[in-house]
Amino acid sequence: MLKVTLLGTGGTQPLPDRALAAAAVTVGGRSVLLDCGEGTQVGLRRYGVSAYRLSAVLLTHYHGDHILGLPGLLQTLSSLNRTEPLTIYGPKGIEPVAQAVTALAGPQVYPVRWQVADEPFHIDTLKITPFPLTHRVPCCGYVLALPRAGRFDPARARAAGIPMPYWKTLQRGEPVGGCTPEQVLGAPRRGLKVVYATDTRPCAALEAAARDADLLCMDATYADDADLPKAELYGHATCRETGALAAAANVRRLWLTHYSAAVTDPAPGLAAARTAYPTAVAGYDGLTEELEFDREP
Amino acid sequence: MLKVTLLGTGGTQPLPDRALAAAAVTVGGRSVLLDCGEGTQVGLRRYGVSAYRLSAVLLTHYHGDHILGLPGLLQTLSSLNRTEPLTIYGPKGIEPVAQAVTALAGPQVYPVRWQVADEPFHIDTLKITPFPLTHRVPCCGYVLALPRAGRFDPARARAAGIPMPYWKTLQRGEPVGGCTPEQVLGAPRRGLKVVYATDTRPCAALEAAARDADLLCMDATYADDADLPKAELYGHATCRETGALAAAANVRRLWLTHYSAAVTDPAPGLAAARTAYPTAVAGYDGLTEELEFDREP
Repeated sequence: MLKVTLLGTGGTQPLPDRALAAAAVTVGGRSVLLDCGEGTQVGLRRYGVSAYRLSAVLLTHYHGDHILGLPGLLQTLSSLNRTEPLTIYGPKGIEPVAQAVTALAGPQVYPVRWQVADEPFHIDTLKITPFPLTHRVPCCGYVLALPRAGRFDPARARAAGIPMPYWKTLQRGEPVGGCTPEQVLGAPRRGLKVVYATDTRPCAALEAAARDADLLCMDATYADDADLPKAELYGHATCRETGALAAAANVRRLWLTHYSAAVTDPAPGLAAARTAYPTAVAGYDGLTEELEFDREP
Repeated sequence: MLKVTLLGTGGTQPLPDRALAAAAVTVGGRSVLLDCGEGTQVGLRRYGVSAYRLSAVLLTHYHGDHILGLPGLLQTLSSLNRTEPLTIYGPKGIEPVAQAVTALAGPQVYPVRWQVADEPFHIDTLKITPFPLTHRVPCCGYVLALPRAGRFDPARARAAGIPMPYWKTLQRGEPVGGCTPEQVLGAPRRGLKVVYATDTRPCAALEAAARDADLLCMDATYADDADLPKAELYGHATCRETGALAAAANVRRLWLTHYSAAVTDPAPGLAAARTAYPTAVAGYDGLTEELEFDREP
């Protein structure tokens, strides 16, 4: 099971009921934080995501509405006596951000590491794949994939003479005692795939990354089609564009997020997104869903 | 009339219903911001204090829970197209804070000035007097005084042959056309005085600064008397101490603020403060009072 929680769904300015960009993806009680706008640590508390059990932070880019919650979050993790290192990933240009955040937040009691995300990597059981978005500064989206091993075949295990105490380990996809998972597992099955993509224009890289995803959380800054010139100027999407991209990428779920502060009613934007993607959901702070592997036939 | 609004009443960590330290003092539609913890710009919106009409920021010290809302606030003022310079005051050591905040927030479209507050100064009609607090780093409290001119005496004005068109200006305490306010005004009357003092131990400088104040907003980090050793170690006050200082300084109103994140129920701390100061008020985010000049006898 993989749980996704939107912690903040606003762009540029926080509103009383809409914090700035942040989301959490939780697997096995540990969470990856995506973006960290001002108010993120309150969102973690409010929506029941453990700050103490954060495994990493993935930043899409370095505009203030995506990073200004970091100094306070880092200090809070110190006050919680974190000892585990925390790695903060982001696109190129992370060094001056690291310096400014560190200068303002001061030293922490645990190691803080800053890492340019330019190729796929793993965090716990999640495979994270950064990909380029189209914004007015370097910006990347993230694919978070939870793989699912093939079905275990006890007949093959017995035929190969693999001792039963090894079976559980092999089922998890890990080799043990000279035996390999391939000896006893069928082809890998469909896992879970969540794609987080803000801030961005609709673009081919995003459509490719989002292909067949279980959930796409995407920039939906502007509700009104008439704001398309602003979307192009500032590197955002209109809700109609967001719906169209989700439909083209054949995703299973679409959540709109990163609303302009001028959007006070999500309904018109949602209607625009639904012209192309009828089951689009208007994201809000605290929106949570638990995604499960497909049921076996 | 002078309005005081508590925007955030927490220390160290923000909670869902308790933002970090910040308060606003508003006179004539313009506000002085005291401290700027994470969440302050949301508090301004939520409690109806115009961010656009901020006249200055007064920082007590540079711990994160008092300053980490600054980068976001500065950016928001740019997005509101502020043109007026903004001066941020604080105790010695402001230069590296200025550098780190500026590095993280980037350049703004209006001038941002940083100023060590080591002597009294004026902001609009308010006289601001910084004074030293007793914390574990350099820290200052602020007296915000709204003076009140003496009573206008029309008989003296007529006797001195002062033209009536000048009267209004002289009443406001300003000279005009060779005439001075002293010619027509009685002795200055009691004005309004608000004292903001956190983070601090109780101390003589605070008691002197708070003497006869209309309102004292003071550090009340710990509810329980048993936490006195922690209060001494970290440079804070227990609620009982806060009440005792308010009583000794003969203030007219006391608001407790800057609660430890461990304080979830304000009642026990309030009871402790009231043993010495029976009308103490437990501060909360959004607490507001409009203070008026004394009625004339």
